[in-house]
Amino acid sequence: MFKFEDGKSYRMPAHFGGADFDPDARAVYNDIVSLAFSYKTDGDRLYDYIPEGFELLRPELTISYQQCREVEWMAGSNYNLVTVSAPVRFNGRHDRIEGSFALVVWENKTTPILTGNMMGVPKIYADIEDLHIFNNIYRTRLSYECSTFLRLEMTRFDQMPDADVKALHADVNSLGWRYIPKVGAPGADLSQPVLFPMRSEPNAAWTGTGTVNWTELTWDQSPTQWHITKALAGLPSIKMNPVVMTQGRSCLMEAKGRVLR
Amino acid sequence: MFKFEDGKSYRMPAHFGGADFDPDARAVYNDIVSLAFSYKTDGDRLYDYIPEGFELLRPELTISYQQCREVEWMAGSNYNLVTVSAPVRFNGRHDRIEGSFALVVWENKTTPILTGNMMGVPKIYADIEDLHIFNNIYRTRLSYECSTFLRLEMTRFDQMPDADVKALHADVNSLGWRYIPKVGAPGADLSQPVLFPMRSEPNAAWTGTGTVNWTELTWDQSPTQWHITKALAGLPSIKMNPVVMTQGRSCLMEAKGRVLR
Amino acid sequence: MFKFEDGKSYRMPAHFGGADFDPDARAVYNDIVSLAFSYKTDGDRLYDYIPEGFELLRPELTISYQQCREVEWMAGSNYNLVTVSAPVRFNGRHDRIEGSFALVVWENKTTPILTGNMMGVPKIYADIEDLHIFNNIYRTRLSYECSTFLRLEMTRFDQMPDADVKALHADVNSLGWRYIPKVGAPGADLSQPVLFPMRSEPNAAWTGTGTVNWTELTWDQSPTQWHITKALAGLPSIKMNPVVMTQGRSCLMEAKGRVLR
Amino acid sequence: MFKFEDGKSYRMPAHFGGADFDPDARAVYNDIVSLAFSYKTDGDRLYDYIPEGFELLRPELTISYQQCREVEWMAGSNYNLVTVSAPVRFNGRHDRIEGSFALVVWENKTTPILTGNMMGVPKIYADIEDLHIFNNIYRTRLSYECSTFLRLEMTRFDQMPDADVKALHADVNSLGWRYIPKVGAPGADLSQPVLFPMRSEPNAAWTGTGTVNWTELTWDQSPTQWHITKALAGLPSIKMNPVVMTQGRSCLMEAKGRVLR
Repeated sequence: MFKFEDGKSYRMPAHFGGADFDPDARAVYNDIVSLAFSYKTDGDRLYDYIPEGFELLRPELTISYQQCREVEWMAGSNYNLVTVSAPVRFNGRHDRIEGSFALVVWENKTTPILTGNMMGVPKIYADIEDLHIFNNIYRTRLSYECSTFLRLEMTRFDQMPDADVKALHADVNSLGWRYIPKVGAPGADLSQPVLFPMRSEPNAAWTGTGTVNWTELTWDQSPTQWHITKALAGLPSIKMNPVVMTQGRSCLMEAKGRVLR
Repeated sequence: MFKFEDGKSYRMPAHFGGADFDPDARAVYNDIVSLAFSYKTDGDRLYDYIPEGFELLRPELTISYQQCREVEWMAGSNYNLVTVSAPVRFNGRHDRIEGSFALVVWENKTTPILTGNMMGVPKIYADIEDLHIFNNIYRTRLSYECSTFLRLEMTRFDQMPDADVKALHADVNSLGWRYIPKVGAPGADLSQPVLFPMRSEPNAAWTGTGTVNWTELTWDQSPTQWHITKALAGLPSIKMNPVVMTQGRSCLMEAKGRVLR
Repeated sequence: MFKFEDGKSYRMPAHFGGADFDPDARAVYNDIVSLAFSYKTDGDRLYDYIPEGFELLRPELTISYQQCREVEWMAGSNYNLVTVSAPVRFNGRHDRIEGSFALVVWENKTTPILTGNMMGVPKIYADIEDLHIFNNIYRTRLSYECSTFLRLEMTRFDQMPDADVKALHADVNSLGWRYIPKVGAPGADLSQPVLFPMRSEPNAAWTGTGTVNWTELTWDQSPTQWHITKALAGLPSIKMNPVVMTQGRSCLMEAKGRVLR
Repeated sequence: MFKFEDGKSYRMPAHFGGADFDPDARAVYNDIVSLAFSYKTDGDRLYDYIPEGFELLRPELTISYQQCREVEWMAGSNYNLVTVSAPVRFNGRHDRIEGSFALVVWENKTTPILTGNMMGVPKIYADIEDLHIFNNIYRTRLSYECSTFLRLEMTRFDQMPDADVKALHADVNSLGWRYIPKVGAPGADLSQPVLFPMRSEPNAAWTGTGTVNWTELTWDQSPTQWHITKALAGLPSIKMNPVVMTQGRSCLMEAKGRVLR
């Protein structure tokens, strides 16, 4: 008979055994290429998608593409992701913290999607192209079951001086909302804000210009995602910021994640 | 600002809106081809993977392949899955129920994997071939990132008479264990047995013989699944039962699922 | 040392051995679901893509989706394809034959693409969804590296009576143009019209209405296919014909294919 | 009506238009990571797969993995490939040339497979993992429809000094056998040795140790490839050479390819 052991961490299916919890556990990504697109948008409309307890700091939407390679917890395997986020402050009774609220994260592999969701990162699936790189133009596209919904394109200009790259080394507060539904009833068993600290250590960085193109999906193209693409495509792009590309190393301080109060 | 509404059901990312909870909600699968392989195994070793509270009814492992098509909640899309289960009785303080305990479910699409996991069905990802059908032999293979770990093969013989097919129409108790880890700490926020009632209504059925071939994955092939393949490959196949193939319709009575006590 | 043997057929890589040529060889597809969309178009513009020697019989474009299962030469494996064709007559010195000229064929597996191309069927790759079936609506989409370029949708109405289905059993002349380029020089080593006889034997058939939606790809989305999607998207859909769906068996009479003169 | 134009190069489907032939055309791959595994084998058995006209220079099999990125003719897209080759000399009436005879090339994208086959490079499809990189170990696996047939693993030790890397800059003679079957008859329309000059310009290189593991496929796993895996798995690995990894730039001098005589 299988029995859960105290002090261990499990993932579903749990009954094949767990692992000792390590309070210093870090998920190291030894090679991440990241392209961050952002634009000024309509703050009122963006705020419609920010849960109570969070304050929107700027009317800005960030669409960040990451090509993750040499992922240690995946034995060196790899995946791509796109995070859509907004700058917020959590104003709780105990916690007051600024960071990036993850509205949605698309990833092209199930293993990190599952792990992340359990912890409150709202990951869902999409096909996401590796970067197409030609003539200093960097492109990717996302589709769901053959229906394109997002195209990203950066024209790379200037490499940053080393000192500026060093200045990008930073601890990042990634914020999310964990929602675990009740079984067979409306509402949630768990509905709570969460914090995921990460550390980003780029080796090189570039700036450039870029474009973000959303295509709304219809219900029949994706019954579980169409409303998300509709919401995001509906947020106006008032002014694009410069695009920033980095290459380097990142760590998820996964054991330092916590529920905010 | 986004606010959760009472009486609604949400999925992550929740802040793009939920849906009214429907107590009669059913997920209808209008076309499922199912192949059920089962064999007698070592009951003591199998029992190592059955959580406390469940009693093993027979030392039997079932490996059930399902090719799901015309899935209504996916707007008619499709996926394949393989469920590994054992016959059990849950002996709780309030509930006493017999059914099929899902040790693990491999699926080749993320959307149903995510939804299922939130409800306690231990779904993980694998590439799963559609049936290869040649000369009354039905074959499929499962791999993870190009590493094969399971091969299933059925030789189909006899079609069942209609009366016997009707007798297969049944309500099925699918049982699982929902385990939602704490954030940033060992142990679980939710760790509980769950019930998922389904209804199976085949239109046609056949019997035959078959083989099940496991290949253990190594850590470097799949750091998150190798121990599962090792456990299952280690359970001896003492005697294969006849293989049963069905074609027809199934419903998940998703709103009738519940936590067992 | 490897030597070619007379009377044998080889495929690249040839030096691992060939097979005896069978003059009665037939490639049997035991389960094909087919949806044929067609519309009246501008005959002059369509004719721009029909090679010399072929006469256009009607200004009509047919887009035929086929979900191939139980493919014998693939040991029962499967793939999807979309053929775009026009009704033509070949007026040669020796041959005078009516049939369907394959402008392009998209398939989602490389093995049949390669084999077909060697014989003059202009197959190229696309991701092609299995049918999404919901509420008597049948949908599929095609994309290339996450960029959608074709969406097909049929609403199925009436099942044909058996006698009409029998009348659909037919030998079909599929026509193509084989073009094998010279190595390291412009022009072709082989440039010739070819015939591929097939036999179609549906078990059931339905009629309905439908839509065909093309999206032009740009060069950066597909440097090898953008001009094809541009050409086809540019052909006006003047009047849609009823859509015909069939389910059944097909044979490629592959040893009866020949170069036309 | 479509007419072929002199001096142009076409690909199937040809009737959508061709391109001017450029005698200096080069296909530039701006980022290739390459791992070359090789071992001494049984020369007599290896020679069974080398066509008449070629002389085997050493009883050696090379299995070369390449992760191609920033591929210019694909607008910056990417693919992976594995080439199995042997060192040969072509002794023709006019040409006498040493190079690497491509026994088979597996690639995970159809577009380059098609283009290459037309020119005599024996490319076929497999799923090929991007490199999994962990702790200085580099791994990849190849499978066909979920059946693994090749696993490659390198442990990387020493980085080569710049002078040695420079010495690796080289023109490479890739040799193949183009075989275009007759339509509807045994034998070939074209059966000829071909040369493809490439230029390799690595920026960095490393040496290490490694292993190559073949698994024979059965007919039902791959009716078109099982005999190839059987032949290659049957060639003994008598002594592994050091594994060489490079990172850099390559060019196919595609307009300099030619049929050998």
